[in-house]
Amino acid sequence: MIGEMLCREEHDLVLLQEVWSERDYLYLKKKLACSHPHSHYFKSGVIGSGLAIFSKYRIHDTFVYRYSLNGYPYMAHHGDWFGGKAVGMAILNIGSLTANIYVTHLHAEYCREKDSYLPHRVVQAWELQQFIRHTSAGADVILLGGDLNMHPQDLGNRLLRSYTGLQDSYLETAKFDGCENGMTLIADNPFISKKELGPFEKGIRIDYILFKSSSKADIYCDSMSTTKGSVLDHPFPYSDHEALTAELRLEYCIPAQTGSDRQSKNQDAAAGKLAELVDIVTEARTEVKVGLHCAERMRYTAARTGVMGLALLFLELAIAAVPWLALGAEQPFPRTSFYLLAALCFAILLTTSLLYIFYTMELKSLQGAEDQMRLAVGSLQEKLRGFPLAQPHNPPRRPPEGQEPSAFDPEE
Amino acid sequence: MIGEMLCREEHDLVLLQEVWSERDYLYLKKKLACSHPHSHYFKSGVIGSGLAIFSKYRIHDTFVYRYSLNGYPYMAHHGDWFGGKAVGMAILNIGSLTANIYVTHLHAEYCREKDSYLPHRVVQAWELQQFIRHTSAGADVILLGGDLNMHPQDLGNRLLRSYTGLQDSYLETAKFDGCENGMTLIADNPFISKKELGPFEKGIRIDYILFKSSSKADIYCDSMSTTKGSVLDHPFPYSDHEALTAELRLEYCIPAQTGSDRQSKNQDAAAGKLAELVDIVTEARTEVKVGLHCAERMRYTAARTGVMGLALLFLELAIAAVPWLALGAEQPFPRTSFYLLAALCFAILLTTSLLYIFYTMELKSLQGAEDQMRLAVGSLQEKLRGFPLAQPHNPPRRPPEGQEPSAFDPEE
Repeated sequence: MIGEMLCREEHDLVLLQEVWSERDYLYLKKKLACSHPHSHYFKSGVIGSGLAIFSKYRIHDTFVYRYSLNGYPYMAHHGDWFGGKAVGMAILNIGSLTANIYVTHLHAEYCREKDSYLPHRVVQAWELQQFIRHTSAGADVILLGGDLNMHPQDLGNRLLRSYTGLQDSYLETAKFDGCENGMTLIADNPFISKKELGPFEKGIRIDYILFKSSSKADIYCDSMSTTKGSVLDHPFPYSDHEALTAELRLEYCIPAQTGSDRQSKNQDAAAGKLAELVDIVTEARTEVKVGLHCAERMRYTAARTGVMGLALLFLELAIAAVPWLALGAEQPFPRTSFYLLAALCFAILLTTSLLYIFYTMELKSLQGAEDQMRLAVGSLQEKLRGFPLAQPHNPPRRPPEGQEPSAFDPEE
Repeated sequence: MIGEMLCREEHDLVLLQEVWSERDYLYLKKKLACSHPHSHYFKSGVIGSGLAIFSKYRIHDTFVYRYSLNGYPYMAHHGDWFGGKAVGMAILNIGSLTANIYVTHLHAEYCREKDSYLPHRVVQAWELQQFIRHTSAGADVILLGGDLNMHPQDLGNRLLRSYTGLQDSYLETAKFDGCENGMTLIADNPFISKKELGPFEKGIRIDYILFKSSSKADIYCDSMSTTKGSVLDHPFPYSDHEALTAELRLEYCIPAQTGSDRQSKNQDAAAGKLAELVDIVTEARTEVKVGLHCAERMRYTAARTGVMGLALLFLELAIAAVPWLALGAEQPFPRTSFYLLAALCFAILLTTSLLYIFYTMELKSLQGAEDQMRLAVGSLQEKLRGFPLAQPHNPPRRPPEGQEPSAFDPEE
């Protein structure tokens, strides 16, 4: 169904986040073969990451980064862990420009008031910004489409946008046609329950198309739209989320004016942004520390339960051994209870051992993220201190290489 | 101990791969505080990745990539899975140059003749080259130090070097002082058993320092050395591997001559290299397919055993249920056996379920790597076809910005 919709419209790029089986991907690939000959499905986890890219441009290279934290395997009804959430990257050429296209899907938010997955999602946002920053140095066009599962002003979202400099299509667009406030999870969608939306009765915006210009190309969002729940001639919409479409225009760069006035203004703005970034990273660090505390407590509980299981096993063996040692005395311990209790002890030991290993890995990942954040704050503060004296970091823009406006429309 | 050794010598960078606990890292950090004030420990897995960087230069940013495949958790005596093998990156400035320093440790090879971990190591090498290529576009100096657990001409090593263009210090060095053939795992080391080395009686070279020049800086290896097993005043050497030291010289670039003769020669060489790379990636793909086949078989075995466990459980319940249904008849099934058998069935079901999930994840990762390799081969072949007509891809080198030879010596 969704394939037909995509086929009808002429988009240069289609980014999907919930293609949960390879069969679905292959179906879409066949359907879109005429309009989007190039595609890639990012495999990950047990089910698959769900991420797929369909493109009119040839995909030259791909890379995938699996988030180090992604929920808990025993929360099987939430299913996030089994999806192996990741960020996928595809490199393609648009005219003479190199474009890095990212697609991602972060851990869902099941309860906003008591969101036990918040530290995981913050670490995912942290790793996402790291991945984009470090892999996009050679790119002229940077584009991210994804279900971030975060409201526009949520910590992870601010972290991502501030650190990478990505711009939100919805905020930058010249024209917009779609749901109120660009919402992509709306109450009118029959797949969405009112309970899910909580106090946000009308809906929330959790899907995004973000982009970033480079020294070689400026990107403008000419128009943006979302679907609006129902679909003509269909009893149900295609998805529980509304699809986003953005029409982006690429323009080869005109050299920037580098008057000293403008420079000092730029510096002030950059210093302001840096200071804001330091605050955001510090906030993220606090959130990760909360997660650390929580993971430590869970690991401690697992260890304690394991020790109790072991103690129970020893106690049982001791009770059974006493008559055995007093040779000839009859065994007063009922056999059935003995075996059932022993099986229970072994089950406890096995489960708590697995949980202990899992929580240790969670702790290591959280500690790792916290270490990196601490280092980043130090480095950013250092940069900030040197600011009034520092040279601007952006290299002077190159002379224009001819204008070649090119419109491409990613959709998720 | 190792800290003291490092303190005595004056290296700019120290890369370590087997710091198995944070306590050891903190001890080293304290010991090296005077000479190497900046450091980072990469946390990962259950035990930790073991990777650490000590530097004289301020570390501005770090990033870590955990390999998607890394042995099996039930091979606890090999321990690789618990280490969460990864590649760590640290970004630092050397003069006005941006240096990306990578440190890694791949899965060990326990039996060269029948190496069941080969597909995992090949995928690790594949992910390593992807990580380095995609994160180093903005770097002027690229340096990798690591225990690759591969002989110099092994598939993964060729894949890494061909794809990234990294050069082997041992092959490039002007002077060398150390073990024969640059070996780092030698028979003379008391921690090494003869059996481990197999037919390579004297030893093997599995630790490397690789580097890559950029358009901004040329790198030369002036000298290289290895330790030689024993250490003065110590009964035992510091490690089971010999430490590598390389003295690298950085030179700001002189613009390259771009005569048409040279250009066409360069093109021929580049085409040859591309063709070689296509062969290597194809070879790696074959190896990954072998791994896929093997993982599929293991998953099938797990599934079959699980089904047998389930069948056994049903059989047992049926046998027990017959007298129970024939009301009043005495239960002929001995209780003890009943409970023991039931416990066994549950244990089988649990274990095979966990294994099934694990093998599915392994399959997904192998399939993902194979997909990426297929795409890469297609893309490389496309490039190759266009070669006689294509423009050379290297941008002309910039005019010299003054020579600033700077020597720095990484060690692992």
